[in-house]
Amino acid sequence: MTRPLILATNDDGILAPGLAALVEVVRSIGEVIVVAPDSPQSGMGHAITIDQPLRINEVEAFGEIKAYECSGTPVDCVKLAMNVIKKDRPFDLCVSGINHGSNASINIIYSGTFVSCYEASLEGVNSIGFSLLDYAFDADFKPSQKYIREICLKVLRDGIGDTKLLNVNIPTGMIHGIRVCKQADARWVEEFQQGTDPRGKKYYWLTGRFENNGSEQDSDLKALADGFISMVPSMHDLTHYGALPALKDFENIEV
Amino acid sequence: MTRPLILATNDDGILAPGLAALVEVVRSIGEVIVVAPDSPQSGMGHAITIDQPLRINEVEAFGEIKAYECSGTPVDCVKLAMNVIKKDRPFDLCVSGINHGSNASINIIYSGTFVSCYEASLEGVNSIGFSLLDYAFDADFKPSQKYIREICLKVLRDGIGDTKLLNVNIPTGMIHGIRVCKQADARWVEEFQQGTDPRGKKYYWLTGRFENNGSEQDSDLKALADGFISMVPSMHDLTHYGALPALKDFENIEV
Repeated sequence: MTRPLILATNDDGILAPGLAALVEVVRSIGEVIVVAPDSPQSGMGHAITIDQPLRINEVEAFGEIKAYECSGTPVDCVKLAMNVIKKDRPFDLCVSGINHGSNASINIIYSGTFVSCYEASLEGVNSIGFSLLDYAFDADFKPSQKYIREICLKVLRDGIGDTKLLNVNIPTGMIHGIRVCKQADARWVEEFQQGTDPRGKKYYWLTGRFENNGSEQDSDLKALADGFISMVPSMHDLTHYGALPALKDFENIEV
Repeated sequence: MTRPLILATNDDGILAPGLAALVEVVRSIGEVIVVAPDSPQSGMGHAITIDQPLRINEVEAFGEIKAYECSGTPVDCVKLAMNVIKKDRPFDLCVSGINHGSNASINIIYSGTFVSCYEASLEGVNSIGFSLLDYAFDADFKPSQKYIREICLKVLRDGIGDTKLLNVNIPTGMIHGIRVCKQADARWVEEFQQGTDPRGKKYYWLTGRFENNGSEQDSDLKALADGFISMVPSMHDLTHYGALPALKDFENIEV
């Protein structure tokens, strides 16, 4: 029997301990190929590189597992993995992470972890982004690994229907189980640190704090606060169908 | 009476003719502030700059209209506009574009035009991304301008309900009207041009062709093919609610 073919990627870069922890899990499940950015790419959202050439280097970072570092964004990595590095056989699963830090709620839109999975799922591959709620380089990924293993095994065995895309966040500390839930209604309240550089020029540096708008009981933020792993299915179609009827009016605009 | 405050931005950079065409329209409607990238940022998706400082320069590119170029991504521009440049009064409308090229269907996910509006709408501001189906630098934006004007006026007058976010694409040639519709089910079939650089190193350069998966009658691609302006409302919540029940099984995983 052929072992499932698994693409492992991330946005923290090929040397991130979170990726090592993820590869440690999935190598026991299938044939793994790692394709990850050669440098950290947090906050790159769904960026693609169109005005520059990309580079791929094979690296020996994961023992006998084929691994490649790529000069582009997380989305570039997925495109290269599927269209250049492994063209002969489709991937059975794409996993991204384990991200150092939360990708719950609205954070997915800025998250390379999520969008690399979004890209892979656009290509028809079931994809799961994993994030741990700890930004530290030496975060403890150990408690999450057995859950990640079981989630991956179940996705490979049973599929995930038409969603193809799961966003999984993992709390720190004791894990009480898994909750399938919705994306919380939250937002960043932005602030910019302002300063003057060594050459006397003003600069602005993004900072901010996260604000939960709701007290929803069925959201990913609530699950995480309760010590559960959150699992949110996403979709590709961003159309707000509920808004269509009320907007029909625009079709009557006269110019 | 106070005139509406309008933020104009884009992803093709502050010198793009599409932005000039957009500003020409909205300056007749309200008080306009332009905040746009200092260089083209196509394909940047929802990227934000977190590991570097940002710069803002006031520029005189639009006569008496306040205009700023920013060193970051389209999303950075919106964040800076709302949190640094104009903190005293909220914007009544954000417009982005006119993009040189299509942002119909799945292209929105890679599109700085769309995501700058997504970001502004997250902040509660009604936002509209405008794109013309012509990639040329000297594309003819003239026929689209009267439609853009009427759309902006109607959004300011009537609002757009809870959607806050419209993606508007404009066909080339004769425009037959506006269609409110859904995002087409299409995808990019990727290819990479491979080559060897002057130093003998291999490179990969993203290319590809766009493939419409469906023959949907109610999609943006169909509207555009029929010579209509397409208007698709979007939402912030990416949860695939329909998939939640079938995934409940994951809550029974034992580790």
